[in-house]
Amino acid sequence: MKKFLNDPQDLTTELLEGYTLAYADKVRLVSERIVVRTRPKAEDKVAIVTLGGAGHEPALSGFVGEGMLDASVVGDIFAAPGAPKLLEALKMFRRDAGILLVVLNHAGDVMSANMAMQMAEREGIRVKMLLTHEDISAGLDAPAEDRRGLAGCIPLYKVAGAAAESGQSLDEIYAVAERFNQQMATLAVAMSSATHPQSGQQISELPDDEMEIGMGQHGEAGGGRTKILTANETAERMIAPLIQAVNAQAGDQVLLIINGVGATTLMELNLVFRRAHQVLQTRGIQVVSGLIDELLTVQEMAGFQMILCKLDPDHVVGLKAPCDTPYWTVR
Amino acid sequence: MKKFLNDPQDLTTELLEGYTLAYADKVRLVSERIVVRTRPKAEDKVAIVTLGGAGHEPALSGFVGEGMLDASVVGDIFAAPGAPKLLEALKMFRRDAGILLVVLNHAGDVMSANMAMQMAEREGIRVKMLLTHEDISAGLDAPAEDRRGLAGCIPLYKVAGAAAESGQSLDEIYAVAERFNQQMATLAVAMSSATHPQSGQQISELPDDEMEIGMGQHGEAGGGRTKILTANETAERMIAPLIQAVNAQAGDQVLLIINGVGATTLMELNLVFRRAHQVLQTRGIQVVSGLIDELLTVQEMAGFQMILCKLDPDHVVGLKAPCDTPYWTVR
Repeated sequence: MKKFLNDPQDLTTELLEGYTLAYADKVRLVSERIVVRTRPKAEDKVAIVTLGGAGHEPALSGFVGEGMLDASVVGDIFAAPGAPKLLEALKMFRRDAGILLVVLNHAGDVMSANMAMQMAEREGIRVKMLLTHEDISAGLDAPAEDRRGLAGCIPLYKVAGAAAESGQSLDEIYAVAERFNQQMATLAVAMSSATHPQSGQQISELPDDEMEIGMGQHGEAGGGRTKILTANETAERMIAPLIQAVNAQAGDQVLLIINGVGATTLMELNLVFRRAHQVLQTRGIQVVSGLIDELLTVQEMAGFQMILCKLDPDHVVGLKAPCDTPYWTVR
Repeated sequence: MKKFLNDPQDLTTELLEGYTLAYADKVRLVSERIVVRTRPKAEDKVAIVTLGGAGHEPALSGFVGEGMLDASVVGDIFAAPGAPKLLEALKMFRRDAGILLVVLNHAGDVMSANMAMQMAEREGIRVKMLLTHEDISAGLDAPAEDRRGLAGCIPLYKVAGAAAESGQSLDEIYAVAERFNQQMATLAVAMSSATHPQSGQQISELPDDEMEIGMGQHGEAGGGRTKILTANETAERMIAPLIQAVNAQAGDQVLLIINGVGATTLMELNLVFRRAHQVLQTRGIQVVSGLIDELLTVQEMAGFQMILCKLDPDHVVGLKAPCDTPYWTVR
């Protein structure tokens, strides 16, 4: 395995140590696997908490900071953290204003979240859970529970975090974030596999001349295997179902993100963004916010996730609001 | 070649179009290959201009914006732009306050810069050139002209850009940036090669069980070929000569950057940062600013550049000053 590693057992601990050393002015590590803000938010504002496995850096902990997350509870590589660890974080952020818990739809994360929610309720902690499930690879008719939560959680943290900073109530924040959740859709494409950094195993298989549209962020099958397409063809094939999924019409305002998952260059992602933007423009849909970056990765996998969100005016305000996290800053 | 591409001839044009569409509020494209700020800096302040080949995204154009660059003049993939194109940019930013032209030490860039400087002088344009050459792979005794310019240019843009925004004169900005230039050192390591996106050729060769310390950002040989080391061993072997190169002593303040060049995960870079930080701490050297990110890449090459800069108080102020570019924002 061609990776810079030490003892695989220490991997998650060490990567969190390195991360919080580099960005000590913004984030710090408490109780081993909980990343929190160095300068905490005022107690009278709603806290935003999330959870998920490591190995997707900068997600999820890269977005802890002013205007986004208050805490990220980290599991081992590609593994959900346990319910007791999540409960510990919820206790830490117990407050009258309440906590919004954002959970990506993956079996382990959902199980830990449900258990921790039950325990938190017994302790009288006020917390509301929001489940993201915006992957459309299972088809536009697939029930919400069959859709995975992909990198769309990141702009959702931004929208929810901005609402929380502005002093909105838990119910108001839940409403604006859940509307965002319903109006976003993501489709992934993989061009090469990735190596699990602890087992050394490939997490999927892809022949040299093929790519797969719809592959999940742990190598889950997506059903869209095809010969390699050009950047333009790939963008066109992906943006069309996304437009359909969010029902974007001429005159609508949208957010378009091309999220690199590892080895694919920003150069290539620029080409994909360009073509997707052109298609949206042709249909009279206005891209008011755009990002081309690695927000949520899958080790050294080549490929990307294309995220399209139809925006309410509240969402536009939330996306443009100031924030100060290690991997997303708005002045 | 497993990349998302269209016609290779259109690659640079298309990637710049995609980039400036995504970040239209911050950057725009003029005259095909010149990226400038959407909201220009006041005319009475010094302009900062740079040049270099494409294929290293987000560098160099990703750092055009308030508090960093005023313009980036872009060549084709891994190729310097021509002197006439650079002269065009210098004419565009002609002003009494003057222009600081930052050039990375690579033969093509230096040749274009020297020619454009001569032409600019004949036209009465006030411009001062600063050459970066911080790669220490040729040895600590190598003459400056034999050292390549690596990703250390990026924090240098930040320091120079902050000085320009604060209204300093061209001579003052040159002095603070040149001091930064003399006090920084970079060492690269490669673990896999990369594919040239136009020719489809590998830019270097590395056996499956080897890595190379010192490889340049176009695959140039570095002389430090070795069996694969752990993250800790790699960090130790690289930080030691960097400390020596900048002559950092107990009590000194430094900037430490781990710049991923492509396929190496942020997870791994966190481990490397951790160990380098520990070594510095053990020696009493204080890391006052840190970054772990992909600033200047080499296509899908696995590896990274480690950058160490010994900081004056002016440099600390410059690094922490507000800036607003697509790939480096400080609130």
